[in-house]
Amino acid sequence: MKEQSELHRAKKSVALSGVVAGDTAICSVGRAGNDLHYRGYDIIALAEHATFEEVAYLLLYGRLPSVTQLNQYKKKLKTLRGLPVMLRPMLESLPASAHPMDVLRSGCSALGTILPEAQDHNPGAAREIAHRLIASFGSMLLYWYHWSHNGRRIETETDDDSIAAHFLHLLRGKAPTALQARCLDKSLVLYAEHEFNASTFTARTITGTGADMYAAISGAIGALSGRLHGGANEVAFEIQSRYNDAEHAEQDIRRRLENKEIIIGFGHPLYTIGDPRDQVIRAVARQLCSDGDNTVLFEIASRIADVMWEQKRMFPNVDWFSGVAYHMLAVPTSMFTPLFVIARTSGWAAHVIEQRIDGRIIRPSANYIGPESQEFVPLADRT
Amino acid sequence: MKEQSELHRAKKSVALSGVVAGDTAICSVGRAGNDLHYRGYDIIALAEHATFEEVAYLLLYGRLPSVTQLNQYKKKLKTLRGLPVMLRPMLESLPASAHPMDVLRSGCSALGTILPEAQDHNPGAAREIAHRLIASFGSMLLYWYHWSHNGRRIETETDDDSIAAHFLHLLRGKAPTALQARCLDKSLVLYAEHEFNASTFTARTITGTGADMYAAISGAIGALSGRLHGGANEVAFEIQSRYNDAEHAEQDIRRRLENKEIIIGFGHPLYTIGDPRDQVIRAVARQLCSDGDNTVLFEIASRIADVMWEQKRMFPNVDWFSGVAYHMLAVPTSMFTPLFVIARTSGWAAHVIEQRIDGRIIRPSANYIGPESQEFVPLADRT
Repeated sequence: MKEQSELHRAKKSVALSGVVAGDTAICSVGRAGNDLHYRGYDIIALAEHATFEEVAYLLLYGRLPSVTQLNQYKKKLKTLRGLPVMLRPMLESLPASAHPMDVLRSGCSALGTILPEAQDHNPGAAREIAHRLIASFGSMLLYWYHWSHNGRRIETETDDDSIAAHFLHLLRGKAPTALQARCLDKSLVLYAEHEFNASTFTARTITGTGADMYAAISGAIGALSGRLHGGANEVAFEIQSRYNDAEHAEQDIRRRLENKEIIIGFGHPLYTIGDPRDQVIRAVARQLCSDGDNTVLFEIASRIADVMWEQKRMFPNVDWFSGVAYHMLAVPTSMFTPLFVIARTSGWAAHVIEQRIDGRIIRPSANYIGPESQEFVPLADRT
Repeated sequence: MKEQSELHRAKKSVALSGVVAGDTAICSVGRAGNDLHYRGYDIIALAEHATFEEVAYLLLYGRLPSVTQLNQYKKKLKTLRGLPVMLRPMLESLPASAHPMDVLRSGCSALGTILPEAQDHNPGAAREIAHRLIASFGSMLLYWYHWSHNGRRIETETDDDSIAAHFLHLLRGKAPTALQARCLDKSLVLYAEHEFNASTFTARTITGTGADMYAAISGAIGALSGRLHGGANEVAFEIQSRYNDAEHAEQDIRRRLENKEIIIGFGHPLYTIGDPRDQVIRAVARQLCSDGDNTVLFEIASRIADVMWEQKRMFPNVDWFSGVAYHMLAVPTSMFTPLFVIARTSGWAAHVIEQRIDGRIIRPSANYIGPESQEFVPLADRT
């Protein structure tokens, strides 16, 4: 394993930054300072010309599908939208106050008791589990949501053409427009994979012990729920929604920067020049605001981005404008990160399969800073 | 962070072996080749003279409790044996065929939706969650077990003096003997903590993103379920139970070693001389076999250990004789690793609290070995 210091600058705020934890053929990130490739394909080309289903296929099988392969794959994903009968009472048992991320984590974990992975962990069966999770995470979340909030048991099998359309359909109870579906679809492409990020590394660490796909994915969902990781787009939107207009936003952000406040949604430890996903999600956000005849949120987000560049030379990362896009799609804020889960499950699962080929347990060392050789004092003699 | 190469020999079969991923004051392991200390206290002294509740207190609060503190702590743990009413239908929804580890992972995850951690993540509240999990994991598992296997809804609140006695009581429906309870208790002391092992490192990686205690612990349970980690004591017992007597075991193991087969339960990447926990759990296993008037299993395990030392210079690790001990306590094999969960939750939780002080996200790099710059081919043009 070679030293990566020429590729990545080690960041003090990141543990193990620049330390190589394994090989991957799935993704490379930031090698030119502002680039992202899935299996060698540029993210810009994928986001412009491919759908999320194509990208999930690429990540899981290592190659882009032919027309026939894609049609078969989409057909398979459609058949996996239904929820196992045994999973429903479990989802119904979770309270309305639950965070949607915790619902997905619990649903994934429980699914592993109902449809467990075979012990041989063969890649074909692992991919089938990935397909089911990608196809049904939206079903799990929205089944729980409508039941816990409205007392309605919804039908989760729809004939929508894409995972994005299926999600929006179940959320709102009616099919989205083609523009809306494609906008969400593009964001799923952007969120599908990002090398050894903390949630993927969690999935690989869990896999390294010989654990199954559900253990890895439910652990990864847990990692993604943190505000420094997947939760960042929720925080970004909370910042944007504090303001009524761009002028107000600019004034307040300048004041906060003077007070050394950190604004979530800017900069990225792996990109020195910029996050390539920003241009895509920014265009998506602009289009949705224009389509919805409400450009205020886009103006606020853009103005803050300008101030951040002017004052701090910090660029927006993918999370900054994805909050705008998701809000314009009428997705509740607490479901922003669950959309990230649906997308990233394709990448996580590809890494689980790859880690199994590596076969090693992941077990770093610690630097001990505690007390040395304390003498044991019997309970009765302690004061 | 200093290089640890003098302390640990890097193992090729372990990724990140010898790489320091952070500081800890909780545990040191293998620095003399065969030693383990929890917060500076030798594991041998702790296993001989302290109970699991004392050790959990030590790990979570950083000091051994006084008599008063221990009594208060044990009283608190007793009050936390009950299951929240909302958790019961969730546990009842899981099938009898589920692996107990997946039940605990799902139960932990669902509990996080019912009694979520406050967003400020203060250490006091985090410890309260740890106490509840330590006190009620046995309740969750055995409530599910008796319901799914026998259709009985058991009462999980008992007046047993220890977590070990509570577990055995719920499992069998009657209180264990003092010897049985203390034997299980000692094994919980041994399993409570082990520095940056894969499941603890998983918990710390999840915590590093800002995720909550339930996310960290359910991820850690997933990691522990792998056969290279927590699942090892189940595999060790499966090996031992293949044989009818020590002679048969010796012959077969010699043959397997000639065929280069790996025998699970021997050696440890962090101990060069021996696993200090072996002498404790071996004595426990011997005592339980003698108490149960059935020494065959102990003889088989001992004989295999002799052969492994003679042929391979490999020592038994803690998992080898714990399988014998748990079997003599009439614990079903699939509950061996769940007992490990109950014990290790004390260590995991201490690491979650410590990682929050560190505050960094854990995010290593990858060595890219995939294709470079693939040209995107539109769907219609692919063959």
